[in-house]
Amino acid sequence: MLFYDCSTAPSPRRARMFIAEKGLDIETRDISIAKGEQLSDAFRAVNPRATIPVLVTDEGNALTENLGIAAYLEARYPEPPLMGRNPDEKGAVLMWNAIVEQQGGAPIAETLRNTHPAFEGRAIPGPVSYAQIPELAQRGRDRVAAFFDLLETRLQDSAFVAGDAFSLADITAFVFVDFARVIKIRIPDGNAATQAWFEAVQARPSAQL
Amino acid sequence: MLFYDCSTAPSPRRARMFIAEKGLDIETRDISIAKGEQLSDAFRAVNPRATIPVLVTDEGNALTENLGIAAYLEARYPEPPLMGRNPDEKGAVLMWNAIVEQQGGAPIAETLRNTHPAFEGRAIPGPVSYAQIPELAQRGRDRVAAFFDLLETRLQDSAFVAGDAFSLADITAFVFVDFARVIKIRIPDGNAATQAWFEAVQARPSAQL
Repeated sequence: MLFYDCSTAPSPRRARMFIAEKGLDIETRDISIAKGEQLSDAFRAVNPRATIPVLVTDEGNALTENLGIAAYLEARYPEPPLMGRNPDEKGAVLMWNAIVEQQGGAPIAETLRNTHPAFEGRAIPGPVSYAQIPELAQRGRDRVAAFFDLLETRLQDSAFVAGDAFSLADITAFVFVDFARVIKIRIPDGNAATQAWFEAVQARPSAQL
Repeated sequence: MLFYDCSTAPSPRRARMFIAEKGLDIETRDISIAKGEQLSDAFRAVNPRATIPVLVTDEGNALTENLGIAAYLEARYPEPPLMGRNPDEKGAVLMWNAIVEQQGGAPIAETLRNTHPAFEGRAIPGPVSYAQIPELAQRGRDRVAAFFDLLETRLQDSAFVAGDAFSLADITAFVFVDFARVIKIRIPDGNAATQAWFEAVQARPSAQL
């Protein structure tokens, strides 16, 4: 296997944490988004959609998208389970992963990509240039606030995002909550359940990478 | 089990097709988005996030999000497999499902929700009111055109979206391609591989529901 990573971006960090939680040591190449290496011909021969992460399997398939990489690794290396131990848990993990992606990750990315000068003409990941839409950044901030409410409500009832076991949904939520610093949003004061959960995940070896 | 469906919306159609492809007959309640029933107290007691579909499992868990419902049903009823038969296929199915959701489903929904009068103040699904952003609708149209190119390129190489077997990724792509009619976008003339794939999926009994 071969893992294409980028040390500065949240999406590859999710895959990196998943690999570490599985206890796997996979040959890794770092692609610098700051230098635009994801748009190079060499990298686009690996992933024509010019996104990171990518995991090239032993069978030679280039898997992109965090869920693609996670599903492959979970099937090939079932222990420890990160996507549920029975049908209800498997459903809950992908459900909460989707909620966190759509209600947390998407508005954080929208806010960053539609305001930061580094993303001018690059408001959508990938090879096509799209202009920034400043209104989208303000809506993104409002949605991130709603996401922190949702997460706090959930974590007041549940030790982890998808239930009583650490899972892919915690990795996704942790990476996005941490990444919200780029739009100067932190866990709101008083969200004690979220803060306690965040500190517990942050202490895991996989979060140090 | 109990399935909360809505006959007019694309997200519940995806779950409905998945259930039909599994050959399951699940008790169903229709929630009318046209009448705003998803925002009622009764439905929000089932799903506080006010989205459809929902599958209540025999264990009493209310699973929302298409991937949550699909993961549960795939684990509980493995035949016929709709999420891959081995690690590489499982990775490819969730990879392509994510690509189709983000690059097809998201811009179709953005275009509709940011222009149609019925979605005024409801540009994002769920209980919170968000204003329409007309610029987002135009960007959505551009992205849908790029999605049809991507899909045609893929289907020129592959019988189905995620490989040589029908899968969840085909359900997702079929529902969104069909739903693009609401923004007056059809499969472009000359996209012969997409057209042949679409007709083959449309002929399946699960597509008639």
